[in-house]
Amino acid sequence: MRCEVVAIGTELLLGQIIDTNSSWIGEKLALNGIDSLHQTKVGDNHERIVDSLRLALSRSEAVICCGGLGPTQDDITRAAIAEVMGVELEFHADIAAHIRHIFESRGRAMPENNLAQAEVPIGGRPIPDQPGTAPGLICPLGEKVIYAVPGVPYEMHQMMETAILPDLIERAGLKAVIKSRVLRTWGHSESRLAELLADRIDELDARGNPTLAFLASGIEGLKVRITAKGDDEAEVGRLIEAEEALVRELLGETIFGTDEQTMESVVLDTLRERGLTLAIAEITSGGIASVRFSALDPKGEVFRGSIVPVAGQSRADILGVSADTLGTPVAAKELAQAVRRVFDADIGLATTGQHDLGEGGAAGQTFLGIADADDVVVERVRLPGDRERVRQFSVISLLNALRLRL
Amino acid sequence: MRCEVVAIGTELLLGQIIDTNSSWIGEKLALNGIDSLHQTKVGDNHERIVDSLRLALSRSEAVICCGGLGPTQDDITRAAIAEVMGVELEFHADIAAHIRHIFESRGRAMPENNLAQAEVPIGGRPIPDQPGTAPGLICPLGEKVIYAVPGVPYEMHQMMETAILPDLIERAGLKAVIKSRVLRTWGHSESRLAELLADRIDELDARGNPTLAFLASGIEGLKVRITAKGDDEAEVGRLIEAEEALVRELLGETIFGTDEQTMESVVLDTLRERGLTLAIAEITSGGIASVRFSALDPKGEVFRGSIVPVAGQSRADILGVSADTLGTPVAAKELAQAVRRVFDADIGLATTGQHDLGEGGAAGQTFLGIADADDVVVERVRLPGDRERVRQFSVISLLNALRLRL
Repeated sequence: MRCEVVAIGTELLLGQIIDTNSSWIGEKLALNGIDSLHQTKVGDNHERIVDSLRLALSRSEAVICCGGLGPTQDDITRAAIAEVMGVELEFHADIAAHIRHIFESRGRAMPENNLAQAEVPIGGRPIPDQPGTAPGLICPLGEKVIYAVPGVPYEMHQMMETAILPDLIERAGLKAVIKSRVLRTWGHSESRLAELLADRIDELDARGNPTLAFLASGIEGLKVRITAKGDDEAEVGRLIEAEEALVRELLGETIFGTDEQTMESVVLDTLRERGLTLAIAEITSGGIASVRFSALDPKGEVFRGSIVPVAGQSRADILGVSADTLGTPVAAKELAQAVRRVFDADIGLATTGQHDLGEGGAAGQTFLGIADADDVVVERVRLPGDRERVRQFSVISLLNALRLRL
Repeated sequence: MRCEVVAIGTELLLGQIIDTNSSWIGEKLALNGIDSLHQTKVGDNHERIVDSLRLALSRSEAVICCGGLGPTQDDITRAAIAEVMGVELEFHADIAAHIRHIFESRGRAMPENNLAQAEVPIGGRPIPDQPGTAPGLICPLGEKVIYAVPGVPYEMHQMMETAILPDLIERAGLKAVIKSRVLRTWGHSESRLAELLADRIDELDARGNPTLAFLASGIEGLKVRITAKGDDEAEVGRLIEAEEALVRELLGETIFGTDEQTMESVVLDTLRERGLTLAIAEITSGGIASVRFSALDPKGEVFRGSIVPVAGQSRADILGVSADTLGTPVAAKELAQAVRRVFDADIGLATTGQHDLGEGGAAGQTFLGIADADDVVVERVRLPGDRERVRQFSVISLLNALRLRL
């Protein structure tokens, strides 16, 4: 089963919007065992959309069009699909009523041009789940099919999950269950990870199920994805569990979490379980750790707060830390202890380094302080990249150091 | 002149990497007056790459292939271009020497498979500027041309700017100079902005030069881009200046900056000029403003620091602010005054609101405090979206309120 993606919109070609939708759809298709061998962007031009759809249908059994379902003159996906199907558009009063209801629930009258969104190519059907004003469409052409979804990501995601993926899986006659689990790692380079897993990947390649894939996720480390296929959930679950155990043996404590977990969610969960609280003095990192923790812990049950003491005198005044140690291991130690005390937290963290002096450069070292009631340690790391990368790396390094100590 | 983009790499189709390169190239082409009507993603498959290139050449005068120029077996762009040209690959000893030099300068020996990167289709030529191990290529086919650039963004950017755009402009016989300027706005909805500019856009549409376009940039407001064409820089400069003056008259103080300026860079520059310093208590925003200011002002010349006092008691201890006013206008006022005092800054800012109580919901109000030596004001805003959007909006609203007061 092959399914192409055609992303529609002149703004995509002009680079005004980055087409993240096709990537998202491509990942979902792959995870469900459906091949997507071509993905195309085309502008709001009737003839070119029609040509793109015909080309895609000549190569694949299914096409997902994304975008061009709005109420304006630029939104011509519906008409292009009708032309490819060789049919007219017909008005669906129930869709119109639904759109009118959306407007009325926001206290507004529906503009007349939104009625265009209620037109569906004859033979096609709207996707029942319609979170916005644009209905998604399922339009069969003989044994093949064109789907249309809005370009608004959350509307598209919902329609893909509830209607299009199930329809594709049924058409493909895919009886197998496919599931995957992502193991998130931090600490190894991609080549080191590849080396550690090379033998296992060779074994799996020969067998074909489950499979292992690497996904780089930049500053947040590398992901290892286990994907398994089987006749039912239980079988697939067993395959994934067994493979995860093997990979964990090979990679050890560089695995910090799975699936949707992040470094900060893992650290927060561990602290919460142990009834510990946290505070941070963010000099190098300038507030990045605070943003990440406060997003997950708004009431401050674990993350009691932070100080970003940029100017030297503020550091001295608020934290009682000597102003002349900036960027040294001594500062990391003093700051971690001071912020712990000031916020009355169990654990105090600090980032400081040679970059804070505004000089630094690529050779600069960063010092990460971790203080608790009994002890304070300073980790020394040499972080790559420009100042922004050093800031980001200092946070993930600090959180990882704390995780390993916990 | 039409130029298509073909992004090559199975990882793009699988959604493991988002194709930002095509968007970047599309924007550059548009700004230089070159049409890009189709952009395609294709996997690492020889036959499908060849077909995609042939199709692109049948529709356009130029094609830019992006990716697949590395040293591995998956990197087959060179061979695919040679097939489309109907020629063999030939080895360029000077490219090999350059690649070897790159490895040696990093203290490493060049692996043998990197020699594949020194192969160029006969009749093609390498792009002189080669920041990494992959050379870019310019491969003419009669009157048409295929360019190849690496998928690594900074390498691609450099080759586009130094070689490909100049070559395309020369081929297109574009003698005109094209420049653009972005005016950044905050405060109007897209439809309100469209309404304010509608008459002017109609006038310009009739004339064709300069042009105005809107670019949404999410939470950071809307951009209005003026693009002008002319025989020389001076003429284009005059057109842009004149248009900017007109647009500024129509949009007034919703324009906060131009081109690469951001809300925080404008605020920092204004404060620096006036010799003023700043401190922030970030409750709702949880450190987001700190991250933005500290990125631009590492030495704390203007931004003296911030406190993210998540837990109630920390607020009381450090800032001397009553713990039971959380999320009220009184708290915004007290926090702005307190943080100004604690950091010994000229201006104190604060974000707090009903969302801080962990309840909030869509109806929650946010309070933005701005204190100076003489006065303290509280702005009351109702921000849309989920908690993360409220956090982000609280920062841009706060910075804009400060900008308007300055």
